[in-house]
Amino acid sequence: MTQYKVPTIGGDGIGPEIIREGQKVLDAAGEVFGFDVDWIDFPHGADHYLETGELVSDETIKELSGYKAIYLGALGDPRLTPGILEKGILLKLRFAFDEYINLRPIKLLDGVETPLKDKTAKDIDFVVVRENTEDFYIGIGGRASKGKKQDLLEVERDLYSAKFNLDIETDSEEIAYQIGMISKEGTKRVMEYSYDLAAKRNNHLSSVDKANVLSDIYGFWRETFEEVGKGYPTVQTDFNYVDAVTMWFVKNPEFFDVVVTPNMFGDIITDLGAMIQGGLGLAPGGNINPKGTSMFEPIHGSAPKYKGMDRANPLATIWAGALLIETLGEKEAADTIVKAIEKTILDKKVNTVDMGGSAKCSEVGTEVARLVKELG
Amino acid sequence: MTQYKVPTIGGDGIGPEIIREGQKVLDAAGEVFGFDVDWIDFPHGADHYLETGELVSDETIKELSGYKAIYLGALGDPRLTPGILEKGILLKLRFAFDEYINLRPIKLLDGVETPLKDKTAKDIDFVVVRENTEDFYIGIGGRASKGKKQDLLEVERDLYSAKFNLDIETDSEEIAYQIGMISKEGTKRVMEYSYDLAAKRNNHLSSVDKANVLSDIYGFWRETFEEVGKGYPTVQTDFNYVDAVTMWFVKNPEFFDVVVTPNMFGDIITDLGAMIQGGLGLAPGGNINPKGTSMFEPIHGSAPKYKGMDRANPLATIWAGALLIETLGEKEAADTIVKAIEKTILDKKVNTVDMGGSAKCSEVGTEVARLVKELG
Ligand SMILES: CC(C)[C@H](C(=O)O)[C@@H](O)C(=O)O
Ligand SMILES: CC(C)[C@H](C(=O)O)[C@@H](O)C(=O)O
Repeated sequence: MTQYKVPTIGGDGIGPEIIREGQKVLDAAGEVFGFDVDWIDFPHGADHYLETGELVSDETIKELSGYKAIYLGALGDPRLTPGILEKGILLKLRFAFDEYINLRPIKLLDGVETPLKDKTAKDIDFVVVRENTEDFYIGIGGRASKGKKQDLLEVERDLYSAKFNLDIETDSEEIAYQIGMISKEGTKRVMEYSYDLAAKRNNHLSSVDKANVLSDIYGFWRETFEEVGKGYPTVQTDFNYVDAVTMWFVKNPEFFDVVVTPNMFGDIITDLGAMIQGGLGLAPGGNINPKGTSMFEPIHGSAPKYKGMDRANPLATIWAGALLIETLGEKEAADTIVKAIEKTILDKKVNTVDMGGSAKCSEVGTEVARLVKELG
Repeated sequence: MTQYKVPTIGGDGIGPEIIREGQKVLDAAGEVFGFDVDWIDFPHGADHYLETGELVSDETIKELSGYKAIYLGALGDPRLTPGILEKGILLKLRFAFDEYINLRPIKLLDGVETPLKDKTAKDIDFVVVRENTEDFYIGIGGRASKGKKQDLLEVERDLYSAKFNLDIETDSEEIAYQIGMISKEGTKRVMEYSYDLAAKRNNHLSSVDKANVLSDIYGFWRETFEEVGKGYPTVQTDFNYVDAVTMWFVKNPEFFDVVVTPNMFGDIITDLGAMIQGGLGLAPGGNINPKGTSMFEPIHGSAPKYKGMDRANPLATIWAGALLIETLGEKEAADTIVKAIEKTILDKKVNTVDMGGSAKCSEVGTEVARLVKELG
């Protein structure tokens, strides 16, 4: 029997309860497909931070780096300033493990309601590859008031380092600024991943940018997209301004196959993508380093007001679990989990509140687990 | 008879034909409401640039600055690199005239199809106030290769100037970076405008940011939003992350009354807004300097492939004309034009191709003009 060790971070709010259902389903899949998952719990999140002062320590990162895939619930707590947990845990882990691919399938499952008229499951089935370590997410910026000021801003990545030593002079009362940056290495690798993925799907790759206005950063993105594309003559490509992309997601989602996007625009368009595929309750995401430690999570937040009420929708987390187990090599188990999710939705016996039903979170997990055994 | 002088820039592609219909309608409104518009044509756009090398010269700007409102068609031509006309004409004018408000009503008119299920005209009726002179639109950034480099980047605005003198050091093959900046003065004035507008509407103002990640620039935005809000105790407020906003536009558009957003996020969410209100053919925008020269335009592009075919939808441009004439003081004329647009749509006699009909651009203009006279 294959043995996997998977660290879990339940996190805040509804995080622990949805992760529990994900584990239930993966355990069931293990019984059917002959593997066993050893779950290793990590306490990180708001409570742990408030008790110990640790967001994620270097030791924790070292320990986690021994595993291929982390299972993450959700982070976010109203007691803390926005940004503390997001930057201190979520982004910290994405960067520390150099998880440069944020993979977000946008797929309307059969039986799920989309808010769009005239669109059905066959129209909404694409994948967004969001660059996940660079762009405006590097977190450097500052403020300056009338007069002169010096700022030193540094970025350290596995791939490269960059230092910006700034002398700022302004006659404004006060300004605030933010620097975004992308590197050749970082852009190339996400493009290669995306072209490879398109070649395995329907040979169509769409790039997102705003090169007509943010020309320095996204002109470079575009160039690299074209450069890397020379190696993939069968893949048909197009450039799209991010503003137009939000329209097309709504109007012609069937146009898309694989979409590659810089980090920040990816954040925005994948939330819209989640909505057209039926809402955040159904949207999984993978933070992937193909040669290192990856991390899988639902893309929704921690919904603190529903904490402990056993009413959250665990399907996004269960789906994220399928992506996780596929990464560990269990493709058949992953496919079966997705089928079980689809069947659960079609059967309409255990819909959670967000899907118009009244089933409990745990009932959904139990049902998907049962179906995995039935279908497997 | 009141006499107005209005400069027009038809621009590229379908620009000139849609502006012609807008003029037709405003002329009709003038007959009814007792004013006369003297149209002053400006040739700027791709052809003019390719012939003369002028995008917009300082003299042209000086000349235009003598007027209160410019009527703009559309810019963009496939012969030119993306960004040339946008930055050289559109953004140039927005900045030169310090048009710090980009006003975009998101209103589903009766009779228009929205792509959203279960939403009708009463659900989609809000206004986006997009900051229009700062943020990542200031156009400063650069590239650096392995080693050291110096860049000097400058921003000049009516309100303030800022100089960034950078020493960059990287061991990356090549990086590209972009700097966004907002100022206290620039942020305050757009907040004041937005609070005032909310106070005149339903006393609800939503701010958009991504302060959990781009904390330097948008933390400052948020602070200023709160600061200015102290002067408006009756206005109810909320903060929203831009990613979530794209979901709510689709799921709960009825939540919104006035939305204030930084420039780049505003670009993105107003295209989505245009889509939910029935498409770009129906979305007008105003670039406003309350004490200077404003500029009104449809928010769609120049659609080069339909140039000269008399098939574009002129309604967004006609609506932009209503915003223009309201700015000049003709509120009744403006309201009547919007009513005439609504009636044209409801009558369904002259729908253009994008609205499922086969009417010509010029037929729509003629019909709206006729209705203005009938209703006025
Ligand atoms: C919580 C936040 C930092 C995060 C992001 O912006 O990446 C989230 O919105 C996401 O999309 O995973
Ligand atoms: C054409 C482009 C420069 C412009 C912008 O980004 O502001 C357009 O998209 C808009 O929204 O008016």
